[in-house]
Amino acid sequence: MSQISHVAARMKLESPVMAATPVEQRNDALACIKEALCAHADEIFAANRRDLEMAERNGVAPAVVGRLLFDEHKLADVCAGIDGLVDLPDPVGRTLLRRELDEGLVLERVSCPIGVIGVIFEARPDALVQISTLCLKSGNCAILKGGSETAHTNKAIFEVIYRAAVGAGLPETCLFQAEAREEIGELLGCYGLVDLLIPRGSNEFVRYIMDNTKIPVMGHSDGICHIYVDGAADVDLAVRVCVDAKIQYTAACNAVETLLVDRAIAAEFLPVAVRALEAEGVEVRGDAETCALVDVRPATEADWDTEYLSLIVSIKVVDGADEAIGHINRHGSHHTDAIMTEDVATADRFMRLVDSAGVYQNCSTRFADGFRYGFGAEVGISTSKLHARGPVGLDGLVTYKYKLRGSGQIVGDYATGKASFHFRDLC
Amino acid sequence: MSQISHVAARMKLESPVMAATPVEQRNDALACIKEALCAHADEIFAANRRDLEMAERNGVAPAVVGRLLFDEHKLADVCAGIDGLVDLPDPVGRTLLRRELDEGLVLERVSCPIGVIGVIFEARPDALVQISTLCLKSGNCAILKGGSETAHTNKAIFEVIYRAAVGAGLPETCLFQAEAREEIGELLGCYGLVDLLIPRGSNEFVRYIMDNTKIPVMGHSDGICHIYVDGAADVDLAVRVCVDAKIQYTAACNAVETLLVDRAIAAEFLPVAVRALEAEGVEVRGDAETCALVDVRPATEADWDTEYLSLIVSIKVVDGADEAIGHINRHGSHHTDAIMTEDVATADRFMRLVDSAGVYQNCSTRFADGFRYGFGAEVGISTSKLHARGPVGLDGLVTYKYKLRGSGQIVGDYATGKASFHFRDLC
Repeated sequence: MSQISHVAARMKLESPVMAATPVEQRNDALACIKEALCAHADEIFAANRRDLEMAERNGVAPAVVGRLLFDEHKLADVCAGIDGLVDLPDPVGRTLLRRELDEGLVLERVSCPIGVIGVIFEARPDALVQISTLCLKSGNCAILKGGSETAHTNKAIFEVIYRAAVGAGLPETCLFQAEAREEIGELLGCYGLVDLLIPRGSNEFVRYIMDNTKIPVMGHSDGICHIYVDGAADVDLAVRVCVDAKIQYTAACNAVETLLVDRAIAAEFLPVAVRALEAEGVEVRGDAETCALVDVRPATEADWDTEYLSLIVSIKVVDGADEAIGHINRHGSHHTDAIMTEDVATADRFMRLVDSAGVYQNCSTRFADGFRYGFGAEVGISTSKLHARGPVGLDGLVTYKYKLRGSGQIVGDYATGKASFHFRDLC
Repeated sequence: MSQISHVAARMKLESPVMAATPVEQRNDALACIKEALCAHADEIFAANRRDLEMAERNGVAPAVVGRLLFDEHKLADVCAGIDGLVDLPDPVGRTLLRRELDEGLVLERVSCPIGVIGVIFEARPDALVQISTLCLKSGNCAILKGGSETAHTNKAIFEVIYRAAVGAGLPETCLFQAEAREEIGELLGCYGLVDLLIPRGSNEFVRYIMDNTKIPVMGHSDGICHIYVDGAADVDLAVRVCVDAKIQYTAACNAVETLLVDRAIAAEFLPVAVRALEAEGVEVRGDAETCALVDVRPATEADWDTEYLSLIVSIKVVDGADEAIGHINRHGSHHTDAIMTEDVATADRFMRLVDSAGVYQNCSTRFADGFRYGFGAEVGISTSKLHARGPVGLDGLVTYKYKLRGSGQIVGDYATGKASFHFRDLC
């Protein structure tokens, strides 16, 4: 039995105790964590400098180094995030259903934590704070494994968080940080002990996790997002949104990869859109019809299934909303897809028929994010259909249980007709 | 590409059309199905007689033959079930959240069908009717595979249901019945096309499904349910409930397998309970302390992890509720566990800390059932933590999507501080 499975087995047995902690105690722990992070800022910054120096020695790209950085600004951000999380209502213990089945036999569906969650995330120290505080607020125990490029920072931050959480009275099993890369494999083997895995990172990494564990996985691998520009679109609005969705943060999963343009508006929209995109350094690839209207590189079939994650966009001319919907459901990754139109009926049809976690009208796909949805933070974005879909905040970290309170009722009496149900919802 | 994967691929592409059907049409289809089942009752009964004759020739046990039977009574039951389903509110299109993120930027979380569901179920013709009507009411497409012992009945019933559903205007891809056993393997390979698998049947069968597919599986393998008899229990009530939970239907997953008895009440409870159980033909196995109080066969460690599914029960004396909670969380299957006590605080503690889909006070574990919860029917019982837990009715067959409607908002403006969110819940 590996160390991680020992930890997970103890967590599993004690997770009900964590689940039963009052919200005041969980909020108090969050406040203590914030205070402790500020009190130990210097140690954390020092640890972060060691990680940054190593990254520079290893020739890590400056864009990536920006994510590894943990400074006063990042600290202020995570502290503001913790304040927001404290203010959010308790996701645990909500009565979702209350029904009298018969006289003196009352059924309740009550929200409760999932139990033990494993989160494997990229080298971003602020993510460690967000994820651990989301798990604690929702009453879950968590095993965390952050990217090794920030190992020193992770260690420093985790120790501060853990001491503060346990000092505030949360169980010793509330959190554990895995430090070695081999421990990821051990974590994947913890079926029956870990209730949910949340992997974050590259498509290949997430797919590797999904293919190598029996534990339920919440997350997404691809993010092939589309914008369909309808014949009834406002062209200026559509261009502005398409440019934002492509360039505002190209490496994000919710950046747009393919524009689908209604034939009815192609001649008007394409020249303006391509000029605006190229002005931002975007390489445009078009199908034959697009290439006939604007001077861009031809797209191949493979383009419709590619997540560029860079300054490239593909464009295809389509015959109205229904062809766009078909293309998106076939080639998309069920993440976030938008329609640009002033026609309410077409928008409604698109939003009903596109089978994605997020369906938008007249705004950027880049809004798909837990913070922007008002969830305080997110542990990730889910493209699976079950449990939680889209950005996952506190709501996605809880499940429910049924509580049935009786006064000696037996099923035999209902089977023989001596008693019968009357089903009256009490709330 | 197998036939099933062809079917699933077409369903997947057309499932959004099914999902977008109005509830009136889905209810109308259910009414037509009921009418058609009654109109074709004679053909269905004739097909069922062929299955029953074959079962007799094959020496199938009479108890099992009872499940294969589809007669006037079963028909009346499934028709009543369809009426109940028509009366239930539409689970699709409910607005679960409506939040203004900023002026003119409104987020909605709306319930929607899961998409394509595969259900593999035991040889029970009434289950075919229940499952297909639940899937249709919830706007899902479904691939169904019933037990081969009722192949003729399944074929007759399915044809009637399918013709009625399509006749009422539902898409041709709404339902498909797999008939050959090999098709189960093909169905398990439909990752990316089938959104959810619901296997029903023996523990081994469900575990086989879980181990051999990448498709998310909802269901349960084991059903090791407990009753803890607390020191503050009403002995007569507790005995009556324990007997019902063991004998009312021993083959059910929600039947009790282990009784945990508080030492404080063991001398009083055990003699009465054992007498009552033995009077019903139950074999009792006890730990050393139980054996010292009543004359029963000694239990071994393996008994605490065994689902008997027959007239056997194990009994262990414990030191109060906390030892019982620990035992249940360690040896149970997170299905349904009950406490017998008149002490409200102890009951609350037990119901908070036992990590099961159902936690009961003073009533039989046999109540864990979609019909008895007032869900109309169930497609199965889930012991997994994610998505749906406990008996799964219409609610467990839907997910949600986020709809965001804007007027040209781009993330760049929020990132640079030109715009900011104000998060106002509208409902």
